[in-house]
Amino acid sequence: MTTRPPNVTVGVDFGTLSGRAVVVSVEDGTLLADAVHEYRHGVVTDRLPGGGAALGPDWALQVPEDWREVLRSAVPKALAKAGVTAEQVVGIGTDFTACTVLPTTADGTPLCELPRFADRPHAYPKLWRHHAAQPHADRINALAAERGESWLPRYGGRISSEWQYAKALQLLEEDPEVYAAAERWIEAADWIVRELTGRETRNNCTAGYKGIHQDGAYPSAEYLSALNPGFAGFTAKLGDGPPAPLGGRAGTVTARAAGWTGIGEGTPVSVGNVDAHVTSAAARALDPGHLLAIMGTSTCHILNSDILAEVPGMCGVVADGVVQGLYGYEAGQSGVGDIFAWAVRTVLPESYAVEARERGLSAHELLTEKAQAQPVGAHGLVALDWHSGNRSVLVDHHLSGLVLGLTLDTRPEEMYRALLESTAFGTRVIVEAFEAAGVPVREFTVAGGLAKNRFLMQLYSDVLRRPVNLVGSEQAPALGSAIHAAVAAGAHPDIRTASEAMGRIQRAAFTPDEERAAVYDALFAEYRELHDHFGRGGSDALHRLRALRDTARHHTDARPDENSLEDHA
Amino acid sequence: MTTRPPNVTVGVDFGTLSGRAVVVSVEDGTLLADAVHEYRHGVVTDRLPGGGAALGPDWALQVPEDWREVLRSAVPKALAKAGVTAEQVVGIGTDFTACTVLPTTADGTPLCELPRFADRPHAYPKLWRHHAAQPHADRINALAAERGESWLPRYGGRISSEWQYAKALQLLEEDPEVYAAAERWIEAADWIVRELTGRETRNNCTAGYKGIHQDGAYPSAEYLSALNPGFAGFTAKLGDGPPAPLGGRAGTVTARAAGWTGIGEGTPVSVGNVDAHVTSAAARALDPGHLLAIMGTSTCHILNSDILAEVPGMCGVVADGVVQGLYGYEAGQSGVGDIFAWAVRTVLPESYAVEARERGLSAHELLTEKAQAQPVGAHGLVALDWHSGNRSVLVDHHLSGLVLGLTLDTRPEEMYRALLESTAFGTRVIVEAFEAAGVPVREFTVAGGLAKNRFLMQLYSDVLRRPVNLVGSEQAPALGSAIHAAVAAGAHPDIRTASEAMGRIQRAAFTPDEERAAVYDALFAEYRELHDHFGRGGSDALHRLRALRDTARHHTDARPDENSLEDHA
Repeated sequence: MTTRPPNVTVGVDFGTLSGRAVVVSVEDGTLLADAVHEYRHGVVTDRLPGGGAALGPDWALQVPEDWREVLRSAVPKALAKAGVTAEQVVGIGTDFTACTVLPTTADGTPLCELPRFADRPHAYPKLWRHHAAQPHADRINALAAERGESWLPRYGGRISSEWQYAKALQLLEEDPEVYAAAERWIEAADWIVRELTGRETRNNCTAGYKGIHQDGAYPSAEYLSALNPGFAGFTAKLGDGPPAPLGGRAGTVTARAAGWTGIGEGTPVSVGNVDAHVTSAAARALDPGHLLAIMGTSTCHILNSDILAEVPGMCGVVADGVVQGLYGYEAGQSGVGDIFAWAVRTVLPESYAVEARERGLSAHELLTEKAQAQPVGAHGLVALDWHSGNRSVLVDHHLSGLVLGLTLDTRPEEMYRALLESTAFGTRVIVEAFEAAGVPVREFTVAGGLAKNRFLMQLYSDVLRRPVNLVGSEQAPALGSAIHAAVAAGAHPDIRTASEAMGRIQRAAFTPDEERAAVYDALFAEYRELHDHFGRGGSDALHRLRALRDTARHHTDARPDENSLEDHA
Repeated sequence: MTTRPPNVTVGVDFGTLSGRAVVVSVEDGTLLADAVHEYRHGVVTDRLPGGGAALGPDWALQVPEDWREVLRSAVPKALAKAGVTAEQVVGIGTDFTACTVLPTTADGTPLCELPRFADRPHAYPKLWRHHAAQPHADRINALAAERGESWLPRYGGRISSEWQYAKALQLLEEDPEVYAAAERWIEAADWIVRELTGRETRNNCTAGYKGIHQDGAYPSAEYLSALNPGFAGFTAKLGDGPPAPLGGRAGTVTARAAGWTGIGEGTPVSVGNVDAHVTSAAARALDPGHLLAIMGTSTCHILNSDILAEVPGMCGVVADGVVQGLYGYEAGQSGVGDIFAWAVRTVLPESYAVEARERGLSAHELLTEKAQAQPVGAHGLVALDWHSGNRSVLVDHHLSGLVLGLTLDTRPEEMYRALLESTAFGTRVIVEAFEAAGVPVREFTVAGGLAKNRFLMQLYSDVLRRPVNLVGSEQAPALGSAIHAAVAAGAHPDIRTASEAMGRIQRAAFTPDEERAAVYDALFAEYRELHDHFGRGGSDALHRLRALRDTARHHTDARPDENSLEDHA
């Protein structure tokens, strides 16, 4: 008796530094193999490849060929490791960082690949963390607020400098020739699908969250021309027709892409998607009220709901933005893991570094071990997790962090713990903002690298007074893409069904402890008071300090305190 | 032709861990020699010497024999090094930490030296930093405030737990037998003079600052009996007659003390004094309006004035408290150098520690070097220097510190600099409090170990917008005692004249830079806002955090977060 080999799909997750392909069973999501390909150029921040043009501060570009290499390298490698035949592969799906966006010709050729633009920084894809368009974002927001644009509240009142419009306006104003040559302004999430299928689609997720597509329309030409007359026709570069639904079929694998990947020509390709959003499917976190927190250097929150509301400080709400039939909310904490990394850089004395090395622990493990030896509240500290500003709910990137309650006894691990706690309090503020806006939060699931820190997860459970679920896959975004591919292939009728069959969740991995939660309530009350005092106008000290800092740093006569080096004695 | 050998005096400074003797010329204060003797028992905090009784938390005792050893060891050593004969020594003076206080019999025998009390902690001298009498201090203050005792405003509204009454009340209530046996309750400053002269005096400085002697009287028996009926007669233990004036002659060296010291029997001994206060004479900082800051782990401010005022948060104002004919004010910052030491313990990463070692710098030197490379304000930080509470002007030891403006770019040296700055801002608050109360501050002089940090001194000059003078002696307290000895010996008519002749000051060693001062003004405005918000009732967060901390630490079920150590995964 022979068993029919299982049908599989391929999911490809395009991250910031590498792309990862997985091969999974469409029946139950079993992971058969995975493979990673590191981008040759990584993130381009100083000069263009090959010693080309120098980039300004806050620039971050990528090279499209690096992405193609993932299709040529990681995909066939994963298929080979899985030992599946091309016939078994019924679909492929992808997800990408966002908003990562590039100018192309009408046929999808990146402008940076045209020789005449090869040394023009603006011809390259701008990575999500390209932050040089802040002045443009500021104007976009100010004008939208002034005009009362209806879409603005859908984004918590503020469009990010990372998104399509700010980056495009920067392009227009700083390199109009490249802007004019850009027949298309396309998310990398859609561009890679075009590379697989040979035809252009625009996915509903990035169109909504990054492209200000709301209620069936982009911002008006009138608004855009008020920003800059040359910007009036911008939306023509965003593709024709309405965005494509998630889990839909964008097309099929072309002969060229079949040659790259080893997947059969004609295999269905799902509509593009975003790494964070696609993780919801991997985590079976699609039901209304199920909040998924993807916790890494920062945290992205994804929540579906059947209720449309204006939640303060959310990054966006998009109809069908994550799954058909529900409103998809996104919120965010600008600093989480990178605040913990700051603590390791800053409050890890030599003796701790030596101890960690001798015991074979990471600095985080050592600090966590020392921190958790104390009862809740014994450090007497509270911190604000604003080292890189605050996205939700204050939408203010000019805020900064603080630590309060320091004494001569305060130890490094106590400051570290206070910072861990501050991010949990930040999450609680977001959860409470959803609920206060009438959007219930019923479940809480964590994905991302920080899910491995069990002390942190328990802390979140205690602070939120909720069970914490964990996504049950190490490759959750790629699994999410494979789930979307299965829907596009017709193996499951819709994303929610596919997610139930193929996704992975470990429910109530952590449950709150009443005694600890009671003390955290008291600390959270302090956090909340500081949050409102320094974030909502009680004191504008953080903005004034930033202004002082910027003036001091940019002062043309900027000089060290050289007088103090003279000999006064 | 022979030159007549110069007349000299000996000054002996009794510190926390050692005693130091200097031999100086009475004519011009030239230092001829000095010698140090480390106390054998140092500070007794865990158990009595020889494995005796265990001490409670916050206890700090000393052993009188250690002090006698300074007279037997350091004084003859200094005389020998100076190469002076006994005939050249015209006087000896001493200063001591305060309030360091002990119970003795009527003949001055410390109770701890009686065999029946040798294992009784309360029979030993309580060092200034014995902090176990806080509950007693709290009652002293509450009752004094309730009754409107006229002396309370002379101490900024609050008596310290370090002072004579709190320590004595603790003695009475915790060991009434030792209390009853204590015919005398005497400052170590006066006890050591009794050891030299064989007769008891009480100096006007500690009587005023530590013994609540105001307007010619101690607190009333009525008040004391309201604290505890057994306390009614307490002041009888404080000696007979009025306190002795500073610079006066307490007596002459006895035969026994002459044998110890090598100083001739009958040599004049000046009235006891306190290390901080006596430094004013060494620094020629006795004129009205001349503020002396003795900067070490904490800072003590001494200021003479011809104006009597109630300055908020001062430690005390005493008529003739430093020099005859002027009101002597004392103020203080509870944490200065020990906050910088905390920073070195906490925010000195391994790479910095290695660099300091390789370059032969102290951690403080390295952090200072890195910190001063930045323009003022470029760190974007402001801190509150309340790691061990705030004495002047808030008188609240339950406050704690904070650092505000942290970003992912914030470096250790920036936090260090913000802490340096915070102590300068704390000093500015004190200076402004004096001036606001109508007590002008005309000059500012620094003594103490931190005077060596030239970046810090420049910073103080910029922040205060005043020249900073430095005391011109490395052994300023001992020099100050030698100056007082010269007055007691009749070599100079009074302390101010002697100070002018023998003291040392380096005027305007640092002068303010207008450009830096302007930026510091802006940072000080932030400090002031935080100071008033967290210290004057805007937010009671710091007290609540301390209460949370104390509850967590003292909880009978106190336990680590052991649940987080279980396997939830």
